[in-house]
Amino acid sequence: MLDNTPQGALAALVADLNRALVAQDGAAVAGLFLETGYWRDLAAFTWNLKTCEGRAQIAAMTKAQLPKIAPKSLALDPGEAVSDADGVTEGWLLLETASGRGQGYIRMKDGKIWTLLTTLHELKGHEEPRKLRRPMGAEHGHDPMRKTWKENREDEAARLGYADQPYVLVIGGGQGGIALAARLRQLSVPTIVIDKNPRPGDQWRNRYKSLCLHDPVWYDHLPYIPFPENWPVFAPKDKVGDWLEMYTKVMELNYWSSTTATSASYNEAKGEWTVTVLRDGKQVILHPKQLVLATGMSGKANVPVFKGQDVFKGEQQHSSQHPGPDGYRGKKVVVIGANNSAHDICAALWENGADVTMVQRSSTHIVKSDSLMDVCLSGLYSEQAVANGITHDKADMIFASVPYGIMAGFHVPQYDEIKKRDAGFYAALEKAGFQLDFGDDESGLFMKYLRRGSGYYIDGGACDLIIDGSIKLQSGKGISHLSESAVVLDDGTELAADLVVYATGYGSMNGWAADLISQEVADKVGKCWGLGSDTTKDPGPWEGEQRNMWKPTMQPGLWFHGGNLHQSRHYSRYLALQLKARHVGLDTSVWGLEPPHHLR
Amino acid sequence: MLDNTPQGALAALVADLNRALVAQDGAAVAGLFLETGYWRDLAAFTWNLKTCEGRAQIAAMTKAQLPKIAPKSLALDPGEAVSDADGVTEGWLLLETASGRGQGYIRMKDGKIWTLLTTLHELKGHEEPRKLRRPMGAEHGHDPMRKTWKENREDEAARLGYADQPYVLVIGGGQGGIALAARLRQLSVPTIVIDKNPRPGDQWRNRYKSLCLHDPVWYDHLPYIPFPENWPVFAPKDKVGDWLEMYTKVMELNYWSSTTATSASYNEAKGEWTVTVLRDGKQVILHPKQLVLATGMSGKANVPVFKGQDVFKGEQQHSSQHPGPDGYRGKKVVVIGANNSAHDICAALWENGADVTMVQRSSTHIVKSDSLMDVCLSGLYSEQAVANGITHDKADMIFASVPYGIMAGFHVPQYDEIKKRDAGFYAALEKAGFQLDFGDDESGLFMKYLRRGSGYYIDGGACDLIIDGSIKLQSGKGISHLSESAVVLDDGTELAADLVVYATGYGSMNGWAADLISQEVADKVGKCWGLGSDTTKDPGPWEGEQRNMWKPTMQPGLWFHGGNLHQSRHYSRYLALQLKARHVGLDTSVWGLEPPHHLR
Repeated sequence: MLDNTPQGALAALVADLNRALVAQDGAAVAGLFLETGYWRDLAAFTWNLKTCEGRAQIAAMTKAQLPKIAPKSLALDPGEAVSDADGVTEGWLLLETASGRGQGYIRMKDGKIWTLLTTLHELKGHEEPRKLRRPMGAEHGHDPMRKTWKENREDEAARLGYADQPYVLVIGGGQGGIALAARLRQLSVPTIVIDKNPRPGDQWRNRYKSLCLHDPVWYDHLPYIPFPENWPVFAPKDKVGDWLEMYTKVMELNYWSSTTATSASYNEAKGEWTVTVLRDGKQVILHPKQLVLATGMSGKANVPVFKGQDVFKGEQQHSSQHPGPDGYRGKKVVVIGANNSAHDICAALWENGADVTMVQRSSTHIVKSDSLMDVCLSGLYSEQAVANGITHDKADMIFASVPYGIMAGFHVPQYDEIKKRDAGFYAALEKAGFQLDFGDDESGLFMKYLRRGSGYYIDGGACDLIIDGSIKLQSGKGISHLSESAVVLDDGTELAADLVVYATGYGSMNGWAADLISQEVADKVGKCWGLGSDTTKDPGPWEGEQRNMWKPTMQPGLWFHGGNLHQSRHYSRYLALQLKARHVGLDTSVWGLEPPHHLR
Repeated sequence: MLDNTPQGALAALVADLNRALVAQDGAAVAGLFLETGYWRDLAAFTWNLKTCEGRAQIAAMTKAQLPKIAPKSLALDPGEAVSDADGVTEGWLLLETASGRGQGYIRMKDGKIWTLLTTLHELKGHEEPRKLRRPMGAEHGHDPMRKTWKENREDEAARLGYADQPYVLVIGGGQGGIALAARLRQLSVPTIVIDKNPRPGDQWRNRYKSLCLHDPVWYDHLPYIPFPENWPVFAPKDKVGDWLEMYTKVMELNYWSSTTATSASYNEAKGEWTVTVLRDGKQVILHPKQLVLATGMSGKANVPVFKGQDVFKGEQQHSSQHPGPDGYRGKKVVVIGANNSAHDICAALWENGADVTMVQRSSTHIVKSDSLMDVCLSGLYSEQAVANGITHDKADMIFASVPYGIMAGFHVPQYDEIKKRDAGFYAALEKAGFQLDFGDDESGLFMKYLRRGSGYYIDGGACDLIIDGSIKLQSGKGISHLSESAVVLDDGTELAADLVVYATGYGSMNGWAADLISQEVADKVGKCWGLGSDTTKDPGPWEGEQRNMWKPTMQPGLWFHGGNLHQSRHYSRYLALQLKARHVGLDTSVWGLEPPHHLR
């Protein structure tokens, strides 16, 4: 009997998809999609993070990959409900391939697949020791030679990097590096994380005093140990730092603090890196097979060059070097830039009695923090979402299920609502001379973040200080030069300054590779981050995924990890599984590796 | 229309109970119970931990308490199912009084209340800042005078105990002290925890090397931050230590390490303690209103006195002082005692090549760890229970809902099953000369724990070493005396010894009060722990609750906190709320304060 409900139709479509996948019939698979359908795969079918757009790409991918991946099953998750609204029927999937198991999410429109997400969650035979698989701890029975947990940990820590080589070396011990290292430890992949700072969490502690997370707690959990129910909505930086330090210890990471990498080179024949590090000032040579740069998408400071920087007699700092406002009471400060850091730094300086001017050189996207939470995030990441059964793991999957190619379309209506909701606020900002935008296509904050990682401020109050003139604003003007005592704008305006802060953002992460490995390798890999959307600061061609992030690059054995806490949590899963698959020698034939289109 | 289902009958009974409570009609309330019914209350109606047994006690309690407590409502929790089996219908309750809200659990038999549990979970107007009430963290808007989270924490830490007085002083920073302090912090009760050790967690790190938790992970969570899904079933002591240290930091406790209390006295008129402590060697005088001894139910060593202890030339240690086996390879060791610590220490010494003899002076209850988990704990505390929706918070409530007066009856069948399951094992132990028991009434481990806190070993393998003679056993004999080089038993057997370990347990916690305050106060309070069951080492009269634990004592302002991780978690809730109620000046008229029946 035919089931004509949306649920029945989706079940039939999924059954067809399953049959075509198991039969390794790529043409049949592609035929189940809309002509403009999307298949986003996170390491389950492509050994890559890849979105195939349209039937032709899907057919090409499946033709190449299905014989290697050998799908075993794909089915609606019996534990989850199918939903149906506005002509779109959606459901959760469980899937299994020859080597792994995973989850998926499907959207059906007009009886065909509009979007399909497939993700790898575990490798068969290498499942994580969680829940029923958790370790026993106490080993019952007795063995005269056995060591305690503490002795074993100390032995491991003493040997790794010396007597034993790590399989993975992670450079950078912020949230990204430790989330990845925690997953790798659970997968029994020998890993060292190195970081230049004395203590885990110093990446946050060392930043400007007033810094708090701009994303709310529900969005920010690390893997394995979620923040407790009393955790602040927007955690202060030092509290985040303490949490990261705790996490590093409790998750038993091999974390080398006060350690810097000074050089790295790759031996193609051996498939191995030689990395020289200074650990507490002593040189150690490491030979990992895989090298992960987790130094942060906001890692490498972008300091602009202006005439007169050598003449200026006051202090000059990149925002990442700014120590906070305490030393600047009564001083004149010019902050160049108008994004998140610029606003936070200006507000804190004003609070501490400095005379602050912000120089806005181009327009900025502003969104009030509570509007962002209420309108954009609350469906997936909020106390209400948790009460509705949407854990952050589920939210991550739902979020990931929207291909980047259509994501902006999902976001535009939200920002239309925000424009209405906060119309008075935006009008006041413009009246104060502030130049606003909502992105080239009015899609707002998260698309700007994905495309260029800059160009916005999540307002926690600094805008009111601009509106009322407490923070002085110079807008729409460039910098001509610095004199001995002032920043001079290109219209001749002189801004007297004791301190100039360059809140001018960060370069592409492949700059780290240039410094550590070589310019040649950095160029071979190309720019990191960005989608190729052909919008401001995100030149094409379109790639459909973030360039070089969490996936294979043109340089074998070199990986980039980073992003906000949400991304560190979610994408570390796929990066860890890609590394584990190589660690145990699985066939990881990558589909769709992209050559570089931009060098930085 | 009458609803004759068990669900309908329970709903009607609960409705009757609600009407009688709200009407403050104690006689009517009592009449809804079986003649032999039980009402266990945890701070909601009695401002005590109290079990009223039978209609007369219930009527007396309600007559005194209902006018003060002013119940507002008690109803079946609409989010939970009613269950019905073997003539007993059970359900979850939500309740509200004039000052608080709480949960309950009811069992109905023959149309009457067989057991009722009522518990206080929060005080109105003083709800914990969790979930929707969590703090914002970043304070939006701007204020020139405001301080960062870190500055505020540092200020608080610097002032508390000097410029500001704590309302509560907790002595002892093990799992009990910190679980309580974490709850008090969430309730905004100024609290200091002091501990003699340099680091939180040293209480575990300093114990014998092979120590692991004997209870499985599902039973051991602390409040607010549960162990992650990869946590070992039986965590090794050093890993527990690191977790406690992390917890202390992340929960922002005011924890004074390397601090000892040297004396304490109570000023009745002022309702205030004067406590002298040495913090890092410097004297500080504290004036808390409430003093909590959380020094551990296994805190004060019980060292037996034998003739010749002054003559013996080898080493003598209480089990709490035993450093682990490393120094004793090839040595002869006599361990006096046959409970948990004795077994663990003997096994570790044997593993490290010592010649070990255990002296068992009286019978011991042995239960294999996996049998305990499978038969006794798995319904409430296991991966399966979690999968069934029984969180540890729910498990704690179900566990607490069985009054101690009938608990042994619930446990006897479980131990009957264990006796059958492990018959061969027990026979082998007896063949090796080991004296076994299952408690005076065959009710097994947990009742022994509640009654006397001793007399058992959860077998993790040491029994096999006794069975095969690897650990030598002397059983059923007393100690005559020690010679220069041996322990001499009362049948004349000489056990040559380089080391004697007294695994002879611990005294009552009021011994701590004697040392710190005075013998007079210790005697006024009387013995801690035990139910008054009139079984071995738990003399009557029957009290129905654990003596002096987590509830008011005969000494105003003096409280005892302790027990295993489960108890520390669950009962710290009620102790914290009792302290908070006093902190904000609520009427906390205590029902049923018990005078001491035993001094130690």
